[in-house]
Amino acid sequence: MFPQNAWYVAAAVAEIDGRPLGRTICGERMVFYRNERGEATALEDFCPHRGAPLSLGRVCDGRLVCGYHGLVMGCDGQAVSIPAHSVERFPAIGRWPCVERHGFIWVWPGDPAQADVQAIPAFEWSGNPGWAYGGGLYHMACDYRLLIDNLMDLTHETYVHAGSIGQPEIDETPCKTRREGDTVITERHMVGIQAPPFWQMAMRENGMDPAQRVDRWQICRYSPPSHVMIDVGVAIAGQGGWQAADACKTAATVVDFITPETRTSTWYFWGMARQFKPDDAELTARIREGQGRIFAEDREMLERQQSNLAHWPQRRLMNLPIDAGGVHARRVIDRWLAAQTAIGPHDAPASD
Amino acid sequence: MFPQNAWYVAAAVAEIDGRPLGRTICGERMVFYRNERGEATALEDFCPHRGAPLSLGRVCDGRLVCGYHGLVMGCDGQAVSIPAHSVERFPAIGRWPCVERHGFIWVWPGDPAQADVQAIPAFEWSGNPGWAYGGGLYHMACDYRLLIDNLMDLTHETYVHAGSIGQPEIDETPCKTRREGDTVITERHMVGIQAPPFWQMAMRENGMDPAQRVDRWQICRYSPPSHVMIDVGVAIAGQGGWQAADACKTAATVVDFITPETRTSTWYFWGMARQFKPDDAELTARIREGQGRIFAEDREMLERQQSNLAHWPQRRLMNLPIDAGGVHARRVIDRWLAAQTAIGPHDAPASD
Amino acid sequence: MFPQNAWYVAAAVAEIDGRPLGRTICGERMVFYRNERGEATALEDFCPHRGAPLSLGRVCDGRLVCGYHGLVMGCDGQAVSIPAHSVERFPAIGRWPCVERHGFIWVWPGDPAQADVQAIPAFEWSGNPGWAYGGGLYHMACDYRLLIDNLMDLTHETYVHAGSIGQPEIDETPCKTRREGDTVITERHMVGIQAPPFWQMAMRENGMDPAQRVDRWQICRYSPPSHVMIDVGVAIAGQGGWQAADACKTAATVVDFITPETRTSTWYFWGMARQFKPDDAELTARIREGQGRIFAEDREMLERQQSNLAHWPQRRLMNLPIDAGGVHARRVIDRWLAAQTAIGPHDAPASD
Repeated sequence: MFPQNAWYVAAAVAEIDGRPLGRTICGERMVFYRNERGEATALEDFCPHRGAPLSLGRVCDGRLVCGYHGLVMGCDGQAVSIPAHSVERFPAIGRWPCVERHGFIWVWPGDPAQADVQAIPAFEWSGNPGWAYGGGLYHMACDYRLLIDNLMDLTHETYVHAGSIGQPEIDETPCKTRREGDTVITERHMVGIQAPPFWQMAMRENGMDPAQRVDRWQICRYSPPSHVMIDVGVAIAGQGGWQAADACKTAATVVDFITPETRTSTWYFWGMARQFKPDDAELTARIREGQGRIFAEDREMLERQQSNLAHWPQRRLMNLPIDAGGVHARRVIDRWLAAQTAIGPHDAPASD
Repeated sequence: MFPQNAWYVAAAVAEIDGRPLGRTICGERMVFYRNERGEATALEDFCPHRGAPLSLGRVCDGRLVCGYHGLVMGCDGQAVSIPAHSVERFPAIGRWPCVERHGFIWVWPGDPAQADVQAIPAFEWSGNPGWAYGGGLYHMACDYRLLIDNLMDLTHETYVHAGSIGQPEIDETPCKTRREGDTVITERHMVGIQAPPFWQMAMRENGMDPAQRVDRWQICRYSPPSHVMIDVGVAIAGQGGWQAADACKTAATVVDFITPETRTSTWYFWGMARQFKPDDAELTARIREGQGRIFAEDREMLERQQSNLAHWPQRRLMNLPIDAGGVHARRVIDRWLAAQTAIGPHDAPASD
Repeated sequence: MFPQNAWYVAAAVAEIDGRPLGRTICGERMVFYRNERGEATALEDFCPHRGAPLSLGRVCDGRLVCGYHGLVMGCDGQAVSIPAHSVERFPAIGRWPCVERHGFIWVWPGDPAQADVQAIPAFEWSGNPGWAYGGGLYHMACDYRLLIDNLMDLTHETYVHAGSIGQPEIDETPCKTRREGDTVITERHMVGIQAPPFWQMAMRENGMDPAQRVDRWQICRYSPPSHVMIDVGVAIAGQGGWQAADACKTAATVVDFITPETRTSTWYFWGMARQFKPDDAELTARIREGQGRIFAEDREMLERQQSNLAHWPQRRLMNLPIDAGGVHARRVIDRWLAAQTAIGPHDAPASD
């Protein structure tokens, strides 16, 4: 299961441009749109009149209008009007704390009283003209934790992504895992290696000689409920690795927002933020395309891993040092699950 | 659930031209074909020999021949022969009262003893050279009652069919609902309005000036189990509306035969009968195409409404005056359900 | 259910050329590949590290390498290594007796201790330069026994395959069924008939006049668990039928290996071995294409028969003399099921 009292990425901002978006988050059917004040809003995707999904309607002057019979819904979940009739006795529908940050719509699917927008993490790349960001969204038929495992253990790159970012040196270099509060950090530093194809491309774009020996790093940071930021890059060998001067390195952050749809399906918001050539939109598009291809390679593996685990529910998995990142992340999740009194809008309808 | 002791439309006559048709009606797997006397016939779609669906076979001299091993089935559900063997001890399969009327095959999925062909409604447009009829069949993944609700409350046209038959005046004009026995009638009369696109097209075809102000009417008639006939049309404003002389109006009947397939899926036979230019086959085709496009707009709404109601089974819906037609129709259905002792051919195999 | 202590065909040999093959056999998720000694090997398709399917990996020097994190699996189901870590405490995964015979990979999904490769049947056409073999694989959504019924009663050819191998004389000629131990034999001999289209083609290819009257035979041999070999052919009328001299007959064996995937789905390895023009590869391809088309005609019938039997689980089917082959085969299966103590690798993990 998933922590409900937590902030999740629900959508990219462009997805609610001018029209409502229906999406299930943590098992809740939600509709997202901008209200009268332009604020991102999350309501239950259920018209209290006849049960139609509000996401099939439209947004009119910041109010959601049901596409079936024209009920006008307020951003507090209380019906405002319906043509020619009173909505006085209409029950409110659920609403969830929702906010726009970093180019995404964030939602808190749990107890609204506990939501604190300060808890949404800050990112150096967000709104920073020195950085460029590009990314996409995949739907994966697996438990969100399998995706966290995947991203907190990059040895899989050697096997799953052999043609792009994988290389034997990943396997050969031990990783170190530590915890800082609820953050789990796994890092690996490869020294004096040949850059793999993806990084040779990036070096070339960044004006570096791709044939040079490099130091390569991967610093994965999990933070709850399910965000994984990975500092990645290569620097000319011997110049300090990830701490090398900008002139002799090519660096980026892999951005992974992992949002449970149901117990066995996940919305995967992936992207890359980079500090080199931030104004080159064509390069952003090219990187996004390459990253999209790479991350699609994980999908079959994760979905069939999910299927295997469902087929053999009693089997215990092995936890090796390479799995420590995922293991620690799951412990954080388990603590969050234990701490929360699971209250969704279902069970405790919002009252005004 | 659905009344079983009732007449439903199972197919258009053309669907059984020369070949058997397999179709599930009210949860019963049926095969339809014409027997030796050319009569529409409904049997269980199950060969008593090895369980093959008889609908994969063919009709030979008015007898259904199983496509697996050649069993010849009689229209009473009793096997007639199978090559080289005796069928003496073969159990009969179920059969249902079945009759051809108004260009459709009608079936009674309940107790045969209670079936009365006189109970099949008559229609002015049926077999009448002054009328033309065109229509089609949609499969909808929803409870048949959601479709009745939809057709007994045409305010949805303003939202779902904004580009064709919807217009704000529908919302603004109250409807009146009344019952006459088991028939439920909901009517709305709009006065001195501009015709919407579909009706402008129809006026033009009928030799009227589409820019003229009109009175528009919608008279929905539900009759059990699930037929909805809607008298619709426009007349030059002030000439008496639906009672205006033929020369100054364009009128038609929307024909809706709604047949449950299962509890959550429905066969929707839709069509339009019109009194103007009945011999213009090209116009019939054009209207059918337009109507098909309009009715397809309802499908996503109804299927997702069904999904929402299944997701939130405890939620009560709101019944407004606009919903009165559907509410009354559901009461009639509930009375029919209570009245019938549910006996299907399953439970009480037909005996001779 | 299916006998587990039995040999089934799991794959054609070409399917494991250079890469592992994942396939479910008798409910067990298996991966097939060639080990270090080139031997066909069947293991559970489950990496003991994190549950990934091993079939998504690759074969490297005869060892299966997991495509997720590089675990190297031994052909005894015991992990050999994983980069940079010890696999000492990794549990073994299940393995099953597996062997290559007759161009196929055979597997024994039951108790390994009872597996005897001598029990795999011999076939005259296998490895015999006087014969040619061609065939294919179909996935059928039905109980494997429906396919045995189908093949042990060829009267269905008259109806299902009217355009190729069916003819009325099949129905008109009684068949005889007998048992020889666990083998069930059903045979039919048609005398002085016109050959149907498929056999006219074969006669032409074999240098015979297709217009001649022929004697035609069908000798179906079921052997457990679910193999059906059918000797088929035509000889110039009056020359002894299937015992006629080679010069005046055209003969072949229809090869059917029927392997349960689950209770309601089946792998169907079909093919034809022939004694005429064995070196004509183009003819082999043509026959395979024709046979594939014919056997595809059975698929819809069998899948919808399966659906009907699931819909009416209480109904008893009729057993006619034409069904005797299937009835006897089912009795053999029932005896095998009763005899075996069902032990799969699930329940009793293989120990060394």
